[in-house]
Amino acid sequence: MPYVNVKITREDVTPDQKAEIIAGVTDLLARVLAKDPAATFVVIDEVALEDWGVGGLPVHEYRRRRSTT
Amino acid sequence: MPYVNVKITREDVTPDQKAEIIAGVTDLLARVLAKDPAATFVVIDEVALEDWGVGGLPVHEYRRRRSTT
Amino acid sequence: MPYVNVKITREDVTPDQKAEIIAGVTDLLARVLAKDPAATFVVIDEVALEDWGVGGLPVHEYRRRRSTT
Amino acid sequence: MPYVNVKITREDVTPDQKAEIIAGVTDLLARVLAKDPAATFVVIDEVALEDWGVGGLPVHEYRRRRSTT
Amino acid sequence: MPYVNVKITREDVTPDQKAEIIAGVTDLLARVLAKDPAATFVVIDEVALEDWGVGGLPVHEYRRRRSTT
Amino acid sequence: MPYVNVKITREDVTPDQKAEIIAGVTDLLARVLAKDPAATFVVIDEVALEDWGVGGLPVHEYRRRRSTT
Repeated sequence: MPYVNVKITREDVTPDQKAEIIAGVTDLLARVLAKDPAATFVVIDEVALEDWGVGGLPVHEYRRRRSTT
Repeated sequence: MPYVNVKITREDVTPDQKAEIIAGVTDLLARVLAKDPAATFVVIDEVALEDWGVGGLPVHEYRRRRSTT
Repeated sequence: MPYVNVKITREDVTPDQKAEIIAGVTDLLARVLAKDPAATFVVIDEVALEDWGVGGLPVHEYRRRRSTT
Repeated sequence: MPYVNVKITREDVTPDQKAEIIAGVTDLLARVLAKDPAATFVVIDEVALEDWGVGGLPVHEYRRRRSTT
Repeated sequence: MPYVNVKITREDVTPDQKAEIIAGVTDLLARVLAKDPAATFVVIDEVALEDWGVGGLPVHEYRRRRSTT
Repeated sequence: MPYVNVKITREDVTPDQKAEIIAGVTDLLARVLAKDPAATFVVIDEVALEDWGVGGLPVHEYRRRRSTT
């Protein structure tokens, strides 16, 4: 009975893409570890760009600097 | 000093129900493990139906298929 | 289909106490929100004292200072 | 830059199976959302059976009752 | 490649304060553990007051009672 | 009352380094957001190298390939 939490930045992810991620993760755990899909939970968190940091900067600022260098 | 995270689907949960969950979890840990309520944090996350998957499907789709079979 | 994560310090918690916490949290969510116990996951994490900080100190140090003042 | 946390029960999962899960989740996010694998973290937590509850019972007890009914 | 999740109550935290937290955590891990900032993720979650419990009460109620006693 | 979770790979991190991280994160939140240290929890998780993936590979394999190219 796996529990999987997927955190991604909030950037126009569609319901169809979310469904694809849910299906893909569930299939993977069924295939590799024989986990029962009916007992596999997948929770997706979309995180606002200002709430996600990398390189010591919020993501949008991090990207801006990288694109201008 | 416990930290408890409760993830549930977002489906019209009222502030009173949340307060009941917070009180119930805190009481439980005080009773079973003698944890100090003042040092017990409970964080509730409501997750949109499209962001929660089970059986390889988003919850709403999972329920729809189960109800029609 | 709730998912609950309970983090507590690792201090001689017995399997019976863990079972009591699992039962208590599951009952609470069934009572307050009518959640199906069969679709309720509870995961307990025991955290070593040196890995848990409060008041800017590891727990054991925090307790030591409080008990001597 | 996704972060994925996979929680499974601790039951003789091999390093090869873990590597397969890491590869599978990373490929999925690259394919569906064009996420850069080099910026995709996957963290696997194996949880002891006595620390995972379902149906209001620790997993081993839950399975035992289901197999005898 | 650390992953840090900061959960705080939602109370008028500004983007600048979030940026300061992201920078501060990343610098700390670089300084203490020589972690590469480019491989350090910091995710901030702001939690509504009704979803955060302490002392067995939602935060706003907890504060109200403390201020009146 | 912040809750901070720091996940790092398990690589000879000392108790002193952990104490420094706990102190640093707590100070940061007190300075930037005026959070009370006594109500700030910091939980450190050390993750085995085989349980942490990046670039679609377990960390040790990821590093090995990068160092040989």
